[in-house]
Amino acid sequence: MHVLVLGAAGMVGRKLTERLLKDGRLGNREISGMTLQDVVAPEKPAKAPMPVKVVASDFAHAGAAAGLLADRPEVIFHLAAIVSGEAEAEFDKGYRINLDGTRYLIEAIRHLGGGYKPRLVFTSSIAVFGAPFPEKIGDEFFHTPLTSYGTQKLICELLINDYTRKGMLEGISIRLPTICVRPGKPNKAASGFFSNIIREPLAGHEAVLPVSEDVRHWHATPKSAVGFLVHAATMDLGTVGARRNLSMPGLSATVGEQIAALDRVAGKNVVARIKRVPDQSIISIVNGWPRDFSTERAKKLGFTTAEKTFDDIIRIHIEDELGGNFAR
Amino acid sequence: MHVLVLGAAGMVGRKLTERLLKDGRLGNREISGMTLQDVVAPEKPAKAPMPVKVVASDFAHAGAAAGLLADRPEVIFHLAAIVSGEAEAEFDKGYRINLDGTRYLIEAIRHLGGGYKPRLVFTSSIAVFGAPFPEKIGDEFFHTPLTSYGTQKLICELLINDYTRKGMLEGISIRLPTICVRPGKPNKAASGFFSNIIREPLAGHEAVLPVSEDVRHWHATPKSAVGFLVHAATMDLGTVGARRNLSMPGLSATVGEQIAALDRVAGKNVVARIKRVPDQSIISIVNGWPRDFSTERAKKLGFTTAEKTFDDIIRIHIEDELGGNFAR
Repeated sequence: MHVLVLGAAGMVGRKLTERLLKDGRLGNREISGMTLQDVVAPEKPAKAPMPVKVVASDFAHAGAAAGLLADRPEVIFHLAAIVSGEAEAEFDKGYRINLDGTRYLIEAIRHLGGGYKPRLVFTSSIAVFGAPFPEKIGDEFFHTPLTSYGTQKLICELLINDYTRKGMLEGISIRLPTICVRPGKPNKAASGFFSNIIREPLAGHEAVLPVSEDVRHWHATPKSAVGFLVHAATMDLGTVGARRNLSMPGLSATVGEQIAALDRVAGKNVVARIKRVPDQSIISIVNGWPRDFSTERAKKLGFTTAEKTFDDIIRIHIEDELGGNFAR
Repeated sequence: MHVLVLGAAGMVGRKLTERLLKDGRLGNREISGMTLQDVVAPEKPAKAPMPVKVVASDFAHAGAAAGLLADRPEVIFHLAAIVSGEAEAEFDKGYRINLDGTRYLIEAIRHLGGGYKPRLVFTSSIAVFGAPFPEKIGDEFFHTPLTSYGTQKLICELLINDYTRKGMLEGISIRLPTICVRPGKPNKAASGFFSNIIREPLAGHEAVLPVSEDVRHWHATPKSAVGFLVHAATMDLGTVGARRNLSMPGLSATVGEQIAALDRVAGKNVVARIKRVPDQSIISIVNGWPRDFSTERAKKLGFTTAEKTFDDIIRIHIEDELGGNFAR
């Protein structure tokens, strides 16, 4: 079977690609070929067990999607997006990429013909929720995005649900928790500091904490995120019903709890590298974000995390990204 | 102040226009001019107390909105839509009119410049909700449209919320209950029978009931709908906050209760004109529809109905549409 990954050069895209190359299969089906797309060319894997095509293209260009479907991928991972901070600052760009791009994709799928009906796994976001909300957001709490990014993600969920209901594709949208610890360089996501305050000190660098320690947030490791994506691509969708948009399991922690876990796992010297520099624009965006979830539906449908505590999150980062070492 | 009504030739559009012409004002401001738009030319009012422009145009044509904004209307009532049954049968047409049309409109508003920021009153629908839901749907219950129409309406709500949040317009979306008794001829709405079984027998005609008597649904008179629109156009939006999409108050009744009310108000001969002809396609659409609501937020914000019982609904129809008489 052919697999298409949109947004393959992003962090989750690269982690997912690594996993697919390592497994060589999705569920019980062998992967016979892959197409990796992003706005910048994703890295061509060195020793892939199957033919891998690498495509650099503007996902939000009206004609782009048809070419990406040339191999009739049976599974499409749609991770392409511009992040929350950028979508908020660049209104038109956000709608063009995060909304129009998805619409071009599902229209191209619909018009391919010949009974083509791929599994479309869309990465949505907990930014579909907006304050005020209960301390734990349940599976039936309503959606009020308070950012353009959250609005665009929710609209895509709705479109994918409707196209699925009409039999035009087999869609499922999963709302990832904030990925922590996010490897690599800081990006424009307003949520970046949740990872920065762990990753940078472990690498011997200073990190800026722009909010107070009582800010609570919802986290999952890159490993768990990839696990969710693979499960979404392989699970029996017959039991999901019409509600194809699901909040994924995660771990709720305050910034203070994150720092305490860092202290336990890595010690005081590492924690001392966190500098407090309040940033009102980050504070006001983060204030509207969810803090904790009850994700019973996703759990019943077999979505599971790799971590049980924030200490686990830090240990998984040290193991997967730092070869077991850090700057003491 | 100039007022623009989009979808002015539809039933609610005509009722709203009548009210605005009669009042000559919206809240404490005089209406200095009106533009009435629809895909077919709305009827030119005979004795309007202000200049009235009548426009026939395709609302979903990219360039159409800019011309409609030429008089810089300070209030825009956006009632333009194709109905649920038609949007379900004609997928592309539904998205073009119910989604793209709204997007063209809000983009045209945004780009008009000179500090233009009109009040945009959007008529949404309870079709944003989908089964299973609680017997009474509360203000924080999540949205799962199970029709393309409901999907399109919800996406428009989200867009209007986001454009409002960004300061590009002053939007408010109100979800009307099913309008009952709807005057005029049956249209393609799957909900048509709720009105047909009252209106047609009162006019001496047979009516078809395609569902069973235990079907419960959520109703408001045309008079209440117009009242909601006027209130949405004139209320202080400062107290509404970020959640600009509101379910309107209404009356919950079963088809059996509708028929019992018809019996009380108009008698057995009238009721005998209802013929039971089950229609599976209508039954399956209506099964996914809400039955009852708790609309505390809207009530607190001053939205009120003109009717307290289904008997009132029938009496209002007889008074407003039939000059106080019906076919006994």
